[in-house]
Amino acid sequence: MEQAYESISWQEDHLVILDQTQLPLREIYSDVNTIGQVWDAIKKLKVRGAPAIGIAGAYGLYLGVQDLESKNFTSFNVELNRWIEYLKSSRPTAVNLSWALERINQTVYANKDKDLEEIKDIILATAKTIHDEDKRVCKQIGENGAKLVKKGWNILTHCNTGGLATGAYGTALSVILHADADDKDIHVWVDETRPLLQGARLTTWELKQAEVPFHMITDSAAGSLMKQGKVDMIVVGADRVTANGDTANKIGTYPLAVLAKENEIPFYVALPLSTFDLETETGNEIEIEERDEEEVTHVAKTPITPKKTPAYNPAFDVTPHRYITGFITEKGIVEPDFEKNIKKLFAD
Amino acid sequence: MEQAYESISWQEDHLVILDQTQLPLREIYSDVNTIGQVWDAIKKLKVRGAPAIGIAGAYGLYLGVQDLESKNFTSFNVELNRWIEYLKSSRPTAVNLSWALERINQTVYANKDKDLEEIKDIILATAKTIHDEDKRVCKQIGENGAKLVKKGWNILTHCNTGGLATGAYGTALSVILHADADDKDIHVWVDETRPLLQGARLTTWELKQAEVPFHMITDSAAGSLMKQGKVDMIVVGADRVTANGDTANKIGTYPLAVLAKENEIPFYVALPLSTFDLETETGNEIEIEERDEEEVTHVAKTPITPKKTPAYNPAFDVTPHRYITGFITEKGIVEPDFEKNIKKLFAD
Repeated sequence: MEQAYESISWQEDHLVILDQTQLPLREIYSDVNTIGQVWDAIKKLKVRGAPAIGIAGAYGLYLGVQDLESKNFTSFNVELNRWIEYLKSSRPTAVNLSWALERINQTVYANKDKDLEEIKDIILATAKTIHDEDKRVCKQIGENGAKLVKKGWNILTHCNTGGLATGAYGTALSVILHADADDKDIHVWVDETRPLLQGARLTTWELKQAEVPFHMITDSAAGSLMKQGKVDMIVVGADRVTANGDTANKIGTYPLAVLAKENEIPFYVALPLSTFDLETETGNEIEIEERDEEEVTHVAKTPITPKKTPAYNPAFDVTPHRYITGFITEKGIVEPDFEKNIKKLFAD
Repeated sequence: MEQAYESISWQEDHLVILDQTQLPLREIYSDVNTIGQVWDAIKKLKVRGAPAIGIAGAYGLYLGVQDLESKNFTSFNVELNRWIEYLKSSRPTAVNLSWALERINQTVYANKDKDLEEIKDIILATAKTIHDEDKRVCKQIGENGAKLVKKGWNILTHCNTGGLATGAYGTALSVILHADADDKDIHVWVDETRPLLQGARLTTWELKQAEVPFHMITDSAAGSLMKQGKVDMIVVGADRVTANGDTANKIGTYPLAVLAKENEIPFYVALPLSTFDLETETGNEIEIEERDEEEVTHVAKTPITPKKTPAYNPAFDVTPHRYITGFITEKGIVEPDFEKNIKKLFAD
């Protein structure tokens, strides 16, 4: 299957990005010709989603160095590292951004004896490789997950885990898109995903592009649907999965997992191998990040509460592994015993 | 304890209502001098909540007949019934409104041999009785429920079940207000309650008025709080409770009940005896009402999805009795076996 849109694409000599701050009401593709414009696009959330930010940053670095007229590698390298620090400052906490930029930095260093023009070509080639690898991994996740889906199923998903946030297809959404492409006649329930409404704003938009049948629901309607037998499978993404399979993901994931178990509905987590954190043993060691109260007390900048209403806004929750049916990865499905099988996944 | 505000109050010769469409951003008390203004206030949701609508309607009926110059009971009664039908048309599905107006109608008929001016006084007196009875029932619910609350507890509630929706105090919120008045040092978690945000808009406002410490959360954050041990009790209201204790209430109640059981947290339903429906045996017989898609695809009239996004919007869900710890009523706490004990409640 082909995705009907590309959130990031390299066109001969420049980047084209789909401006996510304008979605879902307007679809605006912007030409990005300079590293400054890449910095701005990341800073202003025109590009969002960990893998997508890494990809945009990698191309951005090429845009920064392409016209450099350094006389030797040493001066070129000083400029390169200046641009790397500059790009990192657009989203300091984005792990994928640092990872992509450091990967290019190491590749450049390994090729430091080559001609500077050739090094520039290597930087662009590395950015394309990072992009292509992400697309391939997402496609494999989708293909592996689609095999679990039976004809006519209703699949529920949470947040946005699609092509907008990755090189293409996404993780959990890739499973849905591939099941649909396999003519499984699926229907999707899209949680709106308060507070930032990634489901309502972005997943709906992606499913519309792909012409997959769906209905949007409030987060708190999911339980009633499960109890009525209207949900056959749940598939979500992950921010971090520990060695025993405990899963940190967008707030609202844990309630879905508990309700799924109570109603005997399979609950899957779709993710690339890079999201496993084997250094951390269990979810108890994960600290819950709290975000700004205003995300909860406002919707799309409009206040919904009395002035100065205090709010608690945890960014994610941790789902204990006992509620999870399996993990869908680019290397296949991981079933319990998770501790043993996750280890095996990396040993193979 | 006294409530700091009255959503409906009779002032000598007219009604004063707190305009709930303006909350929480503005507190506007409006004089209501004619039956037409009462009709309008109910129609435009300035008064909302089943008991509150019934009370407003009862006073409205008096405003309608107070200046009637009928010569005899027959012509008075024709006018009275015309006004009753008119008021009912403001919210045709509001059971409490019909109930209050019919109660007055019957009282009038029982006094039909009296002087017409005396009958008018009886109508006002009956409206005041309906109002006072509701206040007393809500107060008793609060006092009974407060005894269950231990010092320092964190109590989670859903939707708005307070004095705004009733004669005073409310049902679930009455438990919270009375526990606070008993110096139990409680803290409240307020679910925002999508789609219509009654928690974010109204419960927060009522808790601010009563100076009860609270934080607002998104509906999907409740599960994570329970898992972290940050919730000691959940108390919600009810739309309808069947003979076996199955409970229909605002969408999002069922997930809270399942999560409460999973985390061993007591889950109570607070309600007046009038909310039990002994004619219906179990929750399976309750049809789930679907409401307008726009409530889900918009927040405060602002669209949050792509155009023409399909949405599913169930108004309430049904919580099976096995997830419920007890019912808090004006006649005390009902514990399992619910089928037996609910029957006993009405037999006593």
